[in-house]
Amino acid sequence: MAYELYYWDGLPGRGEFVRLALEEAGAQYIDVARQSPGMAAMMSVLKSRTEPHIPFAPPFLKDGDLIVSHVANILLYLGPKLGLAPKDESLRFVANGLQLTITDFVAEVHDTHHPLSTNLYYEDQKAAAKQRSADFIAHRIPKFLGYFERVLKQNPKGSDHTVGGGLTYVDLSLFQVFEGLRYAFPRATKKLAEDYPGVAGVHAMVKERPNVTRYLASDRRLDFNESCIFRRYPELDQDA
Amino acid sequence: MAYELYYWDGLPGRGEFVRLALEEAGAQYIDVARQSPGMAAMMSVLKSRTEPHIPFAPPFLKDGDLIVSHVANILLYLGPKLGLAPKDESLRFVANGLQLTITDFVAEVHDTHHPLSTNLYYEDQKAAAKQRSADFIAHRIPKFLGYFERVLKQNPKGSDHTVGGGLTYVDLSLFQVFEGLRYAFPRATKKLAEDYPGVAGVHAMVKERPNVTRYLASDRRLDFNESCIFRRYPELDQDA
Repeated sequence: MAYELYYWDGLPGRGEFVRLALEEAGAQYIDVARQSPGMAAMMSVLKSRTEPHIPFAPPFLKDGDLIVSHVANILLYLGPKLGLAPKDESLRFVANGLQLTITDFVAEVHDTHHPLSTNLYYEDQKAAAKQRSADFIAHRIPKFLGYFERVLKQNPKGSDHTVGGGLTYVDLSLFQVFEGLRYAFPRATKKLAEDYPGVAGVHAMVKERPNVTRYLASDRRLDFNESCIFRRYPELDQDA
Repeated sequence: MAYELYYWDGLPGRGEFVRLALEEAGAQYIDVARQSPGMAAMMSVLKSRTEPHIPFAPPFLKDGDLIVSHVANILLYLGPKLGLAPKDESLRFVANGLQLTITDFVAEVHDTHHPLSTNLYYEDQKAAAKQRSADFIAHRIPKFLGYFERVLKQNPKGSDHTVGGGLTYVDLSLFQVFEGLRYAFPRATKKLAEDYPGVAGVHAMVKERPNVTRYLASDRRLDFNESCIFRRYPELDQDA
């Protein structure tokens, strides 16, 4: 049975980390909210008064009766099934830890344009967004990417992958973060590949995976846009 | 061999979610940074250039050679070993999803006093903190606790626990969130037990667990304070 992925239509957002894993593995899945009447189907799960295990928010995955929510949890669940998790059981906790660091990084990206409230428009928190973005560019990008650079360097199985000796969903997610940062902050990320050659190497390696290449060229891949987590607001961007 | 928990000394913070699980289970553990020269030991792991799998930030757990980082990941790892995870394999993904929702909630609590930057003092982002806190009280507490209320109500194994029919680490974490919210926002949470009777029930149930009661009365339990995630700044509090 095909996996059912539930995520907002019209933006890559957090759903994209799951899509990349499904696409790389060539798994059968339905991107529910992008089909008619998909949004209604998604909302009916979110608002269900009978579902035994309700998610807090999209994305979530349905596999038969089981609903798994939160990106890192979905990838933890899918990883072994898709051949995208380390074989060594204990390394799966390492992979999950890395994925949760990416989760935190992505949440901080979101907060660059919504530092005060998700209930206010960006336009109503622009001054705070400028301050938060300046801090993000000066301190947080170097902190997070510097960390992944060290992770790659110290990986005993080689610096081509974030964990273990083969491709995992963590590598796919790191690719997506790298893409998103360069979309949202073109000025701040001008020298990103130079400054973080390890991360850039993972990005290039993922991009050349045949299934990923095919996916990126398909209409299943959504462009970044200003409904997404990664948004390009020139006034929030500055030289690093 | 005893587990080694690494977390900043002097505050309950995120480490407390792990401590509560270890304490409830009566597990042997060393709270490394609270012993001399614990902080140096913690920093040497964080800054290590040789460790194969470095954490991004505390808390992290060492079990022999394995380092597991991020609260939800540590609890995922410890849960089955401590008898605090559902026995049903698929419910473990439900538990992890709930724990990750708590993770997001706790991150939002942190951002009530640090909405612009973790590199600035609270005093330097007080105006933004007021706006974010007002939004948190009006929208986010109801959204998160309302969700957990529904989770409890819809749990097919009964409303005494968040997942499955027995105590899990998720219940322990929900207890801690309830404690923290009432510490940080005494005015906003005045009617919390009334408004969220299910969550309040879990809180009361956890508090009466003999090992938890003993732990709370011990000097191993740290008080909330203004270095913690949950901080009491009267100017950020208001009636709900």
